[in-house]
Amino acid sequence: MNFRIISYILGWVLTIESIFLIMPFFVGLYYGESAAVSFLIGALVALVVGLPLIIKKPKNTVFFVKEGFVAVALCWIALSIFGALPFVFSGEIPNFVDALFETVSGFTTTGSSILSDVEALSHASIFWRSFTHWIGGMGVLVFLLAILPLAGGSQMYLMRAESPGPSVSKLVPKTQYTALILYGLYIVLSLIQLLLLIAGGMPMFDAVTTMFGTAGTGGFGIKNDSMAGYSPYIQWVVAIFMVLFGVNFNIYFLLMLRRFKQAFKNEELRAYFGIVLAATVLIFFNIHSGITNAADDIRHAFFQVASIITTTGYATTDFDLWPAFSQVILVLIMFIGASAGSTGGGIKVSRIMILAKRAKQEVQHYLHPKRVTKIHFEGKVLDSEVIHATSAYLITYVFIFVSSLLLIAIEGHDTTTCFTAVAATLNNIGPGLSMVGPTQNFGFFNGFSKIVLIFDMLVGRLELFPMLMLFNPRIWFYKRKKNI
Amino acid sequence: MNFRIISYILGWVLTIESIFLIMPFFVGLYYGESAAVSFLIGALVALVVGLPLIIKKPKNTVFFVKEGFVAVALCWIALSIFGALPFVFSGEIPNFVDALFETVSGFTTTGSSILSDVEALSHASIFWRSFTHWIGGMGVLVFLLAILPLAGGSQMYLMRAESPGPSVSKLVPKTQYTALILYGLYIVLSLIQLLLLIAGGMPMFDAVTTMFGTAGTGGFGIKNDSMAGYSPYIQWVVAIFMVLFGVNFNIYFLLMLRRFKQAFKNEELRAYFGIVLAATVLIFFNIHSGITNAADDIRHAFFQVASIITTTGYATTDFDLWPAFSQVILVLIMFIGASAGSTGGGIKVSRIMILAKRAKQEVQHYLHPKRVTKIHFEGKVLDSEVIHATSAYLITYVFIFVSSLLLIAIEGHDTTTCFTAVAATLNNIGPGLSMVGPTQNFGFFNGFSKIVLIFDMLVGRLELFPMLMLFNPRIWFYKRKKNI
Repeated sequence: MNFRIISYILGWVLTIESIFLIMPFFVGLYYGESAAVSFLIGALVALVVGLPLIIKKPKNTVFFVKEGFVAVALCWIALSIFGALPFVFSGEIPNFVDALFETVSGFTTTGSSILSDVEALSHASIFWRSFTHWIGGMGVLVFLLAILPLAGGSQMYLMRAESPGPSVSKLVPKTQYTALILYGLYIVLSLIQLLLLIAGGMPMFDAVTTMFGTAGTGGFGIKNDSMAGYSPYIQWVVAIFMVLFGVNFNIYFLLMLRRFKQAFKNEELRAYFGIVLAATVLIFFNIHSGITNAADDIRHAFFQVASIITTTGYATTDFDLWPAFSQVILVLIMFIGASAGSTGGGIKVSRIMILAKRAKQEVQHYLHPKRVTKIHFEGKVLDSEVIHATSAYLITYVFIFVSSLLLIAIEGHDTTTCFTAVAATLNNIGPGLSMVGPTQNFGFFNGFSKIVLIFDMLVGRLELFPMLMLFNPRIWFYKRKKNI
Repeated sequence: MNFRIISYILGWVLTIESIFLIMPFFVGLYYGESAAVSFLIGALVALVVGLPLIIKKPKNTVFFVKEGFVAVALCWIALSIFGALPFVFSGEIPNFVDALFETVSGFTTTGSSILSDVEALSHASIFWRSFTHWIGGMGVLVFLLAILPLAGGSQMYLMRAESPGPSVSKLVPKTQYTALILYGLYIVLSLIQLLLLIAGGMPMFDAVTTMFGTAGTGGFGIKNDSMAGYSPYIQWVVAIFMVLFGVNFNIYFLLMLRRFKQAFKNEELRAYFGIVLAATVLIFFNIHSGITNAADDIRHAFFQVASIITTTGYATTDFDLWPAFSQVILVLIMFIGASAGSTGGGIKVSRIMILAKRAKQEVQHYLHPKRVTKIHFEGKVLDSEVIHATSAYLITYVFIFVSSLLLIAIEGHDTTTCFTAVAATLNNIGPGLSMVGPTQNFGFFNGFSKIVLIFDMLVGRLELFPMLMLFNPRIWFYKRKKNI
């Protein structure tokens, strides 16, 4: 285990975070808030810890998949801890576990909150809370890779550990350029949404924070009623951009290169749009009645589907009051999640497709044991590595889900609350049903349950294995052989 | 497709059913009930349809896995339809869909009921209802194989299609003797339980029907409060025998042969007992408090665990009122189910173990792509056929579960009701939570939802593929080549 390179990367992540923390400080200054100082102090703390680690560049910058996993997991934990401090310093979220929950929920783009009154926060804190979504959406390691040249091809392991989806494809041969292109596309899409929101008359501060939440598919609202108070135009813009940020960014790269045909032939893209459309139509017919307005119902159905499948978590209506059929559809798309390589969470459309194709193959194999079949995906035969990884993912996912459910259930809230609280955090969605419904919050859980849910959010965002790697004793005590 | 042999088997099943139907007729005569006549008529109807099909033995008695699946599926459907008629004739369950639901629930050993007042039924009907559990538990085709000599090794396909578990092992080389031994063990265990119940002072009629429900792990109660009204002794006997009927019958065969060491080395047996013990202890500590009686709490915890994991469905208390932690444990063991080769339902302990082992293998494969590992189960390397079949089973299971959930949700009852209604029928358990809790019944569902749940019960009992085979158009229109 190359611990030196891990601490070097950790140092860079904290240094970058201290720069990010300066932004809410300026926002606080602009609004003349005393909370601003807490962010300046937070920035300094992160810098004091981070700088010493990066002064000397390690001689050996080569690392492998395990180091990549451990580095990414530790970076995200450090990022969350230091990001939580300003909330504690300012006294706005005095309890550290609560502050950590809120920050992890931000960086992992979950959007679950322990706050019952968001509007009571200072502008600086609201800004930071939403900004964590934007940072976490595309990933802080990807950002680091875009600006920091590391040796050889080993950065790919960092990107693979942080980016969502069953397989990560390099857009261009050099990892640094891939990271730059991804962040470039991310910034351009974010700016377009911001302009459209401002054009719709949304106040600047609201528009920026809403854009942060949409781009990262995070979902922290800045109003207690989430998005319900905004105009239909604003809601449509947010809904459409939630769907767009749930698309694999490779598609935008293809569009940029004018390879339209290749982009629209993408199997995952078609399935993703198909699911959004089908779910919207089914929910519309389920909630629409003679006395409701069809235009409103279509908007609510589309908005909630876009919000849940991309795991954003904004709400324009209290879907906990919807009929069971619509709720079941929301729970199903909650597990499906957005596309691989997007900022969204969940199991991912492509993983579901690979599992479904494997299911078909296994059933055929069961009926015709002698026939040999291969799984085709995106126009080529699927690599058996990817199939194995997908199965490992699903089974590990079920195992973590069940363990978390049992641990949360000890506290004794109703079964729907426990079930959807775990589903909402592990899939990085935000709201669940019942006591954690869209108009409720997670503040009532005890410290133990909150720590379980914090773990679930991190595990969900980093797609299980990097976080689990930390629990492997061999990582800490096993010395890698010199010749490898 | 050898349709002639299928209709021949179908004829035999109906003939056997007509003999079975004579028994509730005599029970009704004994109690001087007018309902008795309906069972005599039912027996005659089954005979009139069945006899013509068996008069001439087909020349070609060779059949394959597909014919086996189709034959078993059709036999169970016919068995259920003809078994439901007496309820309609007697007017005790006038609606045919309701009568079919009750009969399918009986034969599949589910134990879900549409009746709100069981005690209002005639003795004849209560007897038949419970008797269907006993018949369905070990399987009607297995019974047929025990008494009817068919050609070659092809009977094995019938047994494979009807018996629960990922693989069926012949106890002895000849299928007919295997079937005879299984039914022999089943009858002996049933009689021992019957004697113990009568020794505890249970009235004869109650003892026989309770034994039927325990042996088949069915769970139809003959009282509105299920088993709550009986003495602790009776409850302990029933609980212990539920666990015993959830053991793979091969184990009893090994015990019979005095191969104790081999029996107790069985991995599935150990895991099954381990899960029962762990679940009982956890629930006990969860429900026990200073003001409750420890002996009662242990009994209630053990009884409910035994009832749910074996998918029997008897209840001594209303576990819908238990804390969430206990409910979550019950839901988990509901999916695990009993052992393969037992009369219990669910996914089965051995399938869960195979999936867990495969999970471990996949995760290891993910971390060490070059290492080749094999899965060991019950002391030998697991056949890849069994692994494929288990994966196919799980994925198909999830697909049927989700589809049923959506279809049931259309009616608009709460999410917990929909979810546990599907889980309780697909796993052949009986009660769920909320509106289908242990003190409730399934009568409130509309006809469409009932038909979905009837399908789920049959699919669950026959372990998915035989019933699904009926929907394969190739079965009906594809002519098998002569030379095969």
